[in-house]
Amino acid sequence: MSAGQGMHDDPQIFLAKGLTARRNSKGKSNMPTPATGRYFLQVPGPTVVPDRVLRAMSMPLLDHRGPTFSSFAAGISQDLKKLFRTDSEVMIFPSSGTGAWQAAFCNTMSPGDTVLIPEVGMFSVLWAKNARAMGLEVVEIPGDWRSGIDASKVTQALQADTGGRIKAVLATHNETSTGVTSDIPAVRAAIDEAGHEAMLFVDSISSLAATDYRHDVWGVDVTICGSQKGFMLPPGLSFTVASPKALAARESATLPRGYFDWAPAIVAAGNGLYPYTPPVTLFYGLREAVDMLLEEGLENVFDRHARLAKATRAAVTAWGLENQSLNEGEHSNAVTAIRMPQGVDADAFRALVLDKFDMSLAAGLGKLAGQVFRIGHLGYQNDLTLMGALAGVEMGLGMAGIAHQKGGVDAAMQVFSQAANS
Amino acid sequence: MSAGQGMHDDPQIFLAKGLTARRNSKGKSNMPTPATGRYFLQVPGPTVVPDRVLRAMSMPLLDHRGPTFSSFAAGISQDLKKLFRTDSEVMIFPSSGTGAWQAAFCNTMSPGDTVLIPEVGMFSVLWAKNARAMGLEVVEIPGDWRSGIDASKVTQALQADTGGRIKAVLATHNETSTGVTSDIPAVRAAIDEAGHEAMLFVDSISSLAATDYRHDVWGVDVTICGSQKGFMLPPGLSFTVASPKALAARESATLPRGYFDWAPAIVAAGNGLYPYTPPVTLFYGLREAVDMLLEEGLENVFDRHARLAKATRAAVTAWGLENQSLNEGEHSNAVTAIRMPQGVDADAFRALVLDKFDMSLAAGLGKLAGQVFRIGHLGYQNDLTLMGALAGVEMGLGMAGIAHQKGGVDAAMQVFSQAANS
Amino acid sequence: MSAGQGMHDDPQIFLAKGLTARRNSKGKSNMPTPATGRYFLQVPGPTVVPDRVLRAMSMPLLDHRGPTFSSFAAGISQDLKKLFRTDSEVMIFPSSGTGAWQAAFCNTMSPGDTVLIPEVGMFSVLWAKNARAMGLEVVEIPGDWRSGIDASKVTQALQADTGGRIKAVLATHNETSTGVTSDIPAVRAAIDEAGHEAMLFVDSISSLAATDYRHDVWGVDVTICGSQKGFMLPPGLSFTVASPKALAARESATLPRGYFDWAPAIVAAGNGLYPYTPPVTLFYGLREAVDMLLEEGLENVFDRHARLAKATRAAVTAWGLENQSLNEGEHSNAVTAIRMPQGVDADAFRALVLDKFDMSLAAGLGKLAGQVFRIGHLGYQNDLTLMGALAGVEMGLGMAGIAHQKGGVDAAMQVFSQAANS
Amino acid sequence: MSAGQGMHDDPQIFLAKGLTARRNSKGKSNMPTPATGRYFLQVPGPTVVPDRVLRAMSMPLLDHRGPTFSSFAAGISQDLKKLFRTDSEVMIFPSSGTGAWQAAFCNTMSPGDTVLIPEVGMFSVLWAKNARAMGLEVVEIPGDWRSGIDASKVTQALQADTGGRIKAVLATHNETSTGVTSDIPAVRAAIDEAGHEAMLFVDSISSLAATDYRHDVWGVDVTICGSQKGFMLPPGLSFTVASPKALAARESATLPRGYFDWAPAIVAAGNGLYPYTPPVTLFYGLREAVDMLLEEGLENVFDRHARLAKATRAAVTAWGLENQSLNEGEHSNAVTAIRMPQGVDADAFRALVLDKFDMSLAAGLGKLAGQVFRIGHLGYQNDLTLMGALAGVEMGLGMAGIAHQKGGVDAAMQVFSQAANS
Repeated sequence: MSAGQGMHDDPQIFLAKGLTARRNSKGKSNMPTPATGRYFLQVPGPTVVPDRVLRAMSMPLLDHRGPTFSSFAAGISQDLKKLFRTDSEVMIFPSSGTGAWQAAFCNTMSPGDTVLIPEVGMFSVLWAKNARAMGLEVVEIPGDWRSGIDASKVTQALQADTGGRIKAVLATHNETSTGVTSDIPAVRAAIDEAGHEAMLFVDSISSLAATDYRHDVWGVDVTICGSQKGFMLPPGLSFTVASPKALAARESATLPRGYFDWAPAIVAAGNGLYPYTPPVTLFYGLREAVDMLLEEGLENVFDRHARLAKATRAAVTAWGLENQSLNEGEHSNAVTAIRMPQGVDADAFRALVLDKFDMSLAAGLGKLAGQVFRIGHLGYQNDLTLMGALAGVEMGLGMAGIAHQKGGVDAAMQVFSQAANS
Repeated sequence: MSAGQGMHDDPQIFLAKGLTARRNSKGKSNMPTPATGRYFLQVPGPTVVPDRVLRAMSMPLLDHRGPTFSSFAAGISQDLKKLFRTDSEVMIFPSSGTGAWQAAFCNTMSPGDTVLIPEVGMFSVLWAKNARAMGLEVVEIPGDWRSGIDASKVTQALQADTGGRIKAVLATHNETSTGVTSDIPAVRAAIDEAGHEAMLFVDSISSLAATDYRHDVWGVDVTICGSQKGFMLPPGLSFTVASPKALAARESATLPRGYFDWAPAIVAAGNGLYPYTPPVTLFYGLREAVDMLLEEGLENVFDRHARLAKATRAAVTAWGLENQSLNEGEHSNAVTAIRMPQGVDADAFRALVLDKFDMSLAAGLGKLAGQVFRIGHLGYQNDLTLMGALAGVEMGLGMAGIAHQKGGVDAAMQVFSQAANS
Repeated sequence: MSAGQGMHDDPQIFLAKGLTARRNSKGKSNMPTPATGRYFLQVPGPTVVPDRVLRAMSMPLLDHRGPTFSSFAAGISQDLKKLFRTDSEVMIFPSSGTGAWQAAFCNTMSPGDTVLIPEVGMFSVLWAKNARAMGLEVVEIPGDWRSGIDASKVTQALQADTGGRIKAVLATHNETSTGVTSDIPAVRAAIDEAGHEAMLFVDSISSLAATDYRHDVWGVDVTICGSQKGFMLPPGLSFTVASPKALAARESATLPRGYFDWAPAIVAAGNGLYPYTPPVTLFYGLREAVDMLLEEGLENVFDRHARLAKATRAAVTAWGLENQSLNEGEHSNAVTAIRMPQGVDADAFRALVLDKFDMSLAAGLGKLAGQVFRIGHLGYQNDLTLMGALAGVEMGLGMAGIAHQKGGVDAAMQVFSQAANS
Repeated sequence: MSAGQGMHDDPQIFLAKGLTARRNSKGKSNMPTPATGRYFLQVPGPTVVPDRVLRAMSMPLLDHRGPTFSSFAAGISQDLKKLFRTDSEVMIFPSSGTGAWQAAFCNTMSPGDTVLIPEVGMFSVLWAKNARAMGLEVVEIPGDWRSGIDASKVTQALQADTGGRIKAVLATHNETSTGVTSDIPAVRAAIDEAGHEAMLFVDSISSLAATDYRHDVWGVDVTICGSQKGFMLPPGLSFTVASPKALAARESATLPRGYFDWAPAIVAAGNGLYPYTPPVTLFYGLREAVDMLLEEGLENVFDRHARLAKATRAAVTAWGLENQSLNEGEHSNAVTAIRMPQGVDADAFRALVLDKFDMSLAAGLGKLAGQVFRIGHLGYQNDLTLMGALAGVEMGLGMAGIAHQKGGVDAAMQVFSQAANS
């Protein structure tokens, strides 16, 4: 592999230590088939897919170039605007979120352009890797992986860029690897304060439909999202919103686009006619998921996520464990990363919980590998599913002999009881 | 939009004329819901998804980084090798087939490299566009869109390339827009005969699992495929097989890869740990579809497709209509493109059939728009489903007042009766 | 087995000769899994269940005694009245149609009471058996199994019953075994003409939602139906409507009821609270199926069935075969029974069609066993699915060497083309 | 309604007070669609249907009289014998469990025959009602609804029956309304000790596949069961096993049978050819559910249920609440009924829990209405789903202001931790 190409050349960063395939199906089918009660999928994405969505996705395929599908698809795009709080079109690519990152570069940058990335965790690091893989220069603002973006440092970095080489600031709204949420309006203000022309790109992959997000009002230039988190869908779709400024940048950008060209995706958002073969079943699921979110109401969706996150943190505090997120006001509503006491292998703990209680917790990523485990509490989750999850964690801590206090589950119940009473 | 970028800047090529959204749902749901009997999806992909596959895809998501999923995913990859007849790994990207084309370029080419494309139909044209969008030079061998690849011209073109600038010959195995299948071993022989170092890239998107295909024995360097045709899956996955020679080319290639880097995809094929978030539900469907194909047996699968294609052609001949595919031995087993008499609008005919009989036929693409309609007969199809489809065509021809003879349906029945008797 | 008990002691009447389990799954699962294209289920019930209904039935169970379910269930009952054209409650029992027959007796009769049954086919015979099994006397009006109910003979039989022993006339609206529909208003008129107090019981199991039916206007006292025919549901639910006269008869009737007591079923129809555990998933399916029928519109549903039946009969005539139903105006819109030429085994023919074309045709029942085969054309069927089915029959006739003319499929297409043009 | 007919004439016994339809769908569909996370169905049946079973039931219908279905159905019956621990055939009726009770009477009794029923709770009372509805005499052994069957009283009652009028002793294995399990071998011994000819009928509806049960070894004459509890299926099927003695009784019994005749059901168990239209989709689900139980292993299934029940009781004890079941050794592994403190309305509590936490608990039935609530912990349940449920109960107790101690959830965790460690 040539140097500089390999954004993904180390998939082992994702490989949890200590996990082996003990939960193999005992059945005759080739399909994995857990047998004795609902499996708890408590990773921060892909999240639990609601039964309504699973059923919607099992509808037989329509002709993706026929009139029924195109009006159906165009209708979804209209409703997606409500979720992103934008009047711009929401582009859909059949790709993971990584693909949408890359699309943003291809459509707005030329080889050798520079981007500024405040490092807040693993996904900032991977975003920087993708930028380098696409031939861009990267200026990183180092971070401790426990705090959000320091807006003052963004201002400083931009002010130092007197040559105007920085084309975009890349901000992760909710850093999935650390459970830290950054203040996007503050980043916007920092750019404005510096009087710099850089665009603002935001990765909202694990924040959208879990935490308030406003593309237009916040002055974001490119918002990037995926289907498998707050959208409660299987992975397979990415979403992109581009501001007029980003679209203007497209005119002079020279990176090759091909598959990831925004132009036909914008046309498709309007008329439902996709230049490629759209993943029809995921579109069905998307329709249902968007309906569910709008039926519940976005404010209610955000309140629910805030409540689930608060209960989780109450449990963590009661256990005497440490939240990877250091600062009040930056704790994520989507995922909580919990630090293990010194010398304790987080992945061995996760393996035990999976083995004993059929619950998947998320691993520490990158330099946090083995040091933290993460509880996803976004998407199709409610008070009682989270109570089951927290009970599994508390029992697992005890069984693994990890130093902690009891009482986390009780603390979470207190949060939920108060919320339900109000 | 900058010149040369817009491979997909004309999505209207796909828009059938005369179609409006008359088949809207009458129900209260936002989902499209045809009401009075099975809808006939007779386009050459996405094809009908079998109920077994739809059910498999409705299984709740597993943790895509847990041990159950990774061993499950690795198991699929092993079986995929049987379908591509290869000992190499089968890479899976969450993308349409277009993405896999692009990945092939990114991993083996450098800016300014040249590819040779025998033009056999719309998908050759689009492939060439993608190559140009990625900054490659394209040498096209013009074609009449009614014949397969002329191997002698490939030899000539390569012999003319004394400077060795051509890095790859891009061959579409089954051209979906015309219903013509090319002889891949002959193309291989043509390259060898020319004594040229060019690699052989094959688009098997609409041929795999419908027609015999052999990556290793045929000496293919890169095979590209998608999920939504012979695989009987919804769109959303692409497949790629690379020969040792293609992998070696990767070492010196300098096009940016990022999302489409082969290296981690090959690792993932082996250990089931994907660098991106894999489309879990499509993997479930893939497992089931591969099981179905292997249970039926590949030879039986090919025989069935040959029989369905033969019956379709018998009907076309009886109707006195003309097959877009001119040459015996090149007629596709996956799709038949049928020429309309001069002055007849094929899309108006298709609209009528959809309106009256709830059947989607495929449009003519590119320069064939309005001149041909296409019957897909690949995937989850059998004798009686095709008989229903052919009856719909024959009735539609009559209702549209298109000059033809009756007897197409009878001719198809004769083919099936003989086959069933043997 | 004691004499007189065994209404169902001869299940072999249903066993088709010549059929063996050749279509076994080749897969690893215990589930039967046809592999190579849609299976054609052309029996007159259970009919094809639409995908919308299958999906609805896969929704997770709700508490059947909670408020959500009860209001949901009560809502269904209101809409069921529209299908039966009645202002009375529609009772639902978890049973097959046979159970609803028995419930009608238990709720309106006392041991030794007499019923009058015009014999029109196998299901009249079975109904009479059930009556005897419940301890009732049966007066049968013999029939030729090729005609509907002769209303004049009903009048005669009732006039002969000077002692008023006959409590009910049992009329099969659509005789599924012969494909003959009887004129229910004429039977009502016959009872009225005789000035007899007998109630009118109608089995609408294979007529409802396929042919016009009006409980109230036609003066029916008890209507009995099942879920697995025009309702497009799996079997498992029976429906009953009782007139005020039938409810009054309940007061003095002394046959034991228990499970089949109407009283709590009427209460449940109103408030959704069932005395037994209701088959929740079938209720989900029922909701969806009723929505589909009302969305299409009952008149459109009936027109569609009439068209499908007419095309089937056109094919039969063209083949030179004989319809079991003799009289114009009595041919069923739900099923056509076709006589085999003398000496030809209908069941061997059916076995061949199943083996070669994955289509299930229905057997001749009772004294018609081996002499007829039946094509079901009710429920989730449209023009092209029926064309596939008729093509399978025509091909099968040829392969079995059964004397016939070709041209049945062509004749059916002519019917559909004319209908689509109008 | 005539006296003595109305076993089910009071459906209000099932109607929980205080519940109104607040959880109505907010969507556009007619289907109930809870929106914000998994709904907790913690009633003792219908229980949660596993996704595997829901998927199996969505398979398209096969011809129920064709060879594939009959061999498929016969195969299920063979495996059902393993669950009932019997060499006799397991009969299947499309009915609720009530229907199977009635079938047992119809096939073994004559009008005026006598049965002996030890009253252990609501379902004994309903069984007695059904017996009277069928014209039988009932001798009841009064009970306190807090204990199991007192075998010595069975002996006494039988010894007092010097005329041999008692034909059967009706024993409820697990009384769903009270959470008390009776000792069936002790009842058998009591009959034997009395030297009485009475048969032993056992209702295993809520015990089978949750608690050890052995039809043959325990000397049971008729076992009755349903699909919607330990079988993890939707309601709609009942199961019956009859001993040779019960089958012999059938010869002279004179109650009318009709629909509920055992003879054809036994034939069908052997050859898969049902005299009525079998509920095909429930058979699909049954196949999958039986596979799941046998894959897990019956001993493991029973151990899991015992563990879930033990944890529930530990919580009840910690809360300082009273178990309706009084005696150690009789506590149910399937359901726990919990007494509310004097003056507290259990149904208002249940309504609050449903409203606040989307969890359905079961009501007190009959004379326990309003006094107890019940937690179902059978079927597709595991440690964490139950922890979620118990947390919901503990939070609800606090919010409703019901006197209790905290610590129930902690106590349950202790049980599960110990079990997981062993």
